[in-house]
Formats: sequence, C-alpha cells, structure tokens
Amino acid sequence: MAGEVDLSRVRVVLVHTSHPGNIGAVARAMKNMGLSRLYLVKPDLFPHSMATSRASGADDLLASAQVVETLDEALADCCFVVGASARLRSISWPVHHPRECAGRMLDATEDGQVALVMGREQSGLSNAELERCNYLVNIPANPEYSSLNLAAATQVLAYELRMAALARLETRKIVNNKDYRLATVAEVEGLYEHFEVALTDIRFLNPASPRKLMRRLRRLFNRAQLDEMEVNILRGILSAAQGQKYHYENEDKS
Amino acid sequence: MAGEVDLSRVRVVLVHTSHPGNIGAVARAMKNMGLSRLYLVKPDLFPHSMATSRASGADDLLASAQVVETLDEALADCCFVVGASARLRSISWPVHHPRECAGRMLDATEDGQVALVMGREQSGLSNAELERCNYLVNIPANPEYSSLNLAAATQVLAYELRMAALARLETRKIVNNKDYRLATVAEVEGLYEHFEVALTDIRFLNPASPRKLMRRLRRLFNRAQLDEMEVNILRGILSAAQGQKYHYENEDKS
Repeated sequence: MAGEVDLSRVRVVLVHTSHPGNIGAVARAMKNMGLSRLYLVKPDLFPHSMATSRASGADDLLASAQVVETLDEALADCCFVVGASARLRSISWPVHHPRECAGRMLDATEDGQVALVMGREQSGLSNAELERCNYLVNIPANPEYSSLNLAAATQVLAYELRMAALARLETRKIVNNKDYRLATVAEVEGLYEHFEVALTDIRFLNPASPRKLMRRLRRLFNRAQLDEMEVNILRGILSAAQGQKYHYENEDKS
Repeated sequence: MAGEVDLSRVRVVLVHTSHPGNIGAVARAMKNMGLSRLYLVKPDLFPHSMATSRASGADDLLASAQVVETLDEALADCCFVVGASARLRSISWPVHHPRECAGRMLDATEDGQVALVMGREQSGLSNAELERCNYLVNIPANPEYSSLNLAAATQVLAYELRMAALARLETRKIVNNKDYRLATVAEVEGLYEHFEVALTDIRFLNPASPRKLMRRLRRLFNRAQLDEMEVNILRGILSAAQGQKYHYENEDKS
C-alpha cells in the first residue's frame, strides 16, 4: 500500500465528522501519502455517496474503515496519540509543529500502534478528548486565517508522516535506550483512574474541583510518555499510599 | 496578510484550470499559509460561484487574482519559477522535493518575485510550460496512488513555503503555552528527597534496593521537565500519602 514506506501502524481517527464528503477527502489525502488505516468515531453520515465520490480512488480505505462509538475504542491499543487542535485552551498543553510530531509518531511505531486524532469540523476536540493525547499538533497557519479544513489539515500531517518515514529509510535509527515498551492508552487510563481513587482515599483530591488536578496530572504524564514499568511503579506507589499490600514484584524486575 | 511572515513576493500561478471549485480551494489553502497572490492563466470558468463557495473566507484572494492569457504574462517579472509536476517527462529536468524547493524559493525572494506554477487537473504542465521553470517540484507520494488534487498539492507546497519563512524569522516565536516556569534543579532534588522519605514511610520503597527505584523516578520526571506547579502537586500528594495535612492551596491556584 505505502510503497517502500511502512506506515501501517499509524491510524487516523476522525471524531464526530459532520460532512461525509470530508471523510472521503481525508481518505484520499491519507492514501496519497501511504496511510491506510481510518477510524471513524460516530460519524454523522457513513457510509455515504459523498464520501465515496470525494475519496476518488481511495474507496478501499472507506471500505476498511473502523466505525466505533467512542474515542477510547479507537485508541485502546495505541501507545502514542497526537491530537490536532487549532484552538488554544484555558489549560496549557504542549503543542508541537507537524514535523516534530511526525518524527515522534514514527519513533513510537517501533513500540506499537499510534494515532492521529482529528476533531469535529466546527469545534475540534473537546477537553476530555485532548486529555487522551500525548501531544497536540498545530499547523502554524496564517494567524489571520488559520482554520484549515479537515482534509487539508490531514494532507499536511500525512505529508509530514510520509517525509519522516522516507527520511528514516535512509538513516535507520540505531540508538535505542528503552528497556520497556511504551504503555498503551488503556494502561495509562487505568493509571489515571487509580490516581483519582487513591488521591480521594488519601484526601488529597479536592472533591470541589477534581478535574483541574487530574488534568494537570494527565498533562504531566502524557508529556512524559510512560512505559509499562513506570505505570506499574506509579500504581504501586498509589496502592501503597492507599495502605494496600505491595509485593515489590515490579520493582524487583527493574 | 501573512501575519509575521512575509510571503508577498511568492505567487501561485494556476494554468488552464478546468474546475472553478479547485480555484476556490487553492485560494483557501494559500491564505491559510499566508500566501496572497494568485494568477490564473486562461481559467475555463472564472469568476464562478463554485470558486467563491470553496474559497470560504479567502474570497479576497479571488477578487485580487490576476487573470491573464499566457503563462509568460504571469511570469514576466519573476526571477525564479518552480513548476509542480506529478509526471516524469521524456526529457529529464531537475526534480526536487517540496522542502528543498521552498527553501530555494525563499532565498530567491531576496532578489525579486518568485512563482509556483500548478498545471491542469488532468494533464499537468506541457513541455513548453515546464521549460519556463527553473525547478520542478514533486511531492513524493505513494507510488501506487500518487495524484493529489490541485488544492491538496497547493496546500502541501504552501505549507512548506510557510515553514521555510517561519524558519527564517530571526526573532522566531516559539510555541510556548506554559503557565508556570520550569522547576529549578534544587526544587526537583527536593522532590526526589521527598519521594524517598515518603515512599519509605508508606513502605513502598524496598530498603534493599532504593537506588534502582529512585533512578527510574528520576528518569521519568527529568524527561517530563517539571514546572514549579507540578513539583508542588507531586509533593502535595506525597505529603497526603504520609498522612500530613494538606491545604489544597497549590491546587486552587491552578
């Protein structure tokens, strides 16, 4: 599918897309750049003739698209998630340029599946959705006219992914200091749930404003890109703080 | 028009475009990236409601577009011309990637006007037209599905022009969403000491091998580059785990 470039571990996730034509145009942009895996979270209209028509010769991507109910379903097995956001939010979140993001995504494919999440046409991604992301990517557009349409933004990001993959064909990465694989989204979400319960148990979490603290913790740990061992260690600490028995098992392995 | 980036010496020239909707979509892609000067060589239908509609908020570019009879008219005052070509021709011509071309075009703006020439939807540029070009640019697409539509190709090339222009800004504004300063080494060391004491208190730290766990925590948090607020939050959690009073003060500030 992708010629000599392997982008099979990169998926594009479209969240609540309104216009089926945009889904088709995204499929075309993806296939042009050698991407093949499309996930659709609750599209308004799909399948649809407008999607097929705009996809041009990329209707095979539409046929194999995964339609799911929630963003979590689309991301469950991913170890690195990038969200596309045109907006600045009240709470800050690390925002990166497409080129840097593409490089990080390619690095992460060595550990597993990665996802590029594109939000709604009008309103982008919600705060809850942004919190599923390790990185946010922003296309540094003209500040006076900054909203790219969905397919145009996907085209630029897919192009950078392809360029990063082509560059890696020439200079294979040799140095790899990691001793554990990156944690999956499901594992990291489990950690956040544990945090919320444990911090409430030890009376640290202020019941009046739980979201703010949890968002700060998400931002910190998403930025760090936790590996499986680190998730185990942090959960062990939380369990110990809750007064549960802890066997040192995980730590002994390290 | 282009915000802090000056791309006023770069024009996009569309040659014999068939579909007015494509002209509008190109205008939008240009304006998103801070390009403003559009030349149309013998468009089939222009002005046209489809062009205006696809241009979205970029109809000012359509209004100021120069409609000319020949490519030579569109290029007369240019000192550097790049032609977009998906095709390999019988006669060989230097073909470059978008990134390299964008850099060369920006360099050339120091001397005068430069042009990016986009061919017909179906047949691209003729040999006679290609011979007007200093460079040909080719987007390295999926070899099995390589034809980008006109607006998608323009989007990628305009994006590279904008990225090249941004890179040239001497006082480049780095994306910086941080709301707190980075923690000092002393503050982070204080955090690690607190970790060591607190994890011992809650019987998580294995006294037989304290260094290994602490090293893992250091690696995790050093990688994340903690800010002062995050240090406060983590120390708050540790204090709460130790059973000390915590006032929610820091969290309220966030």
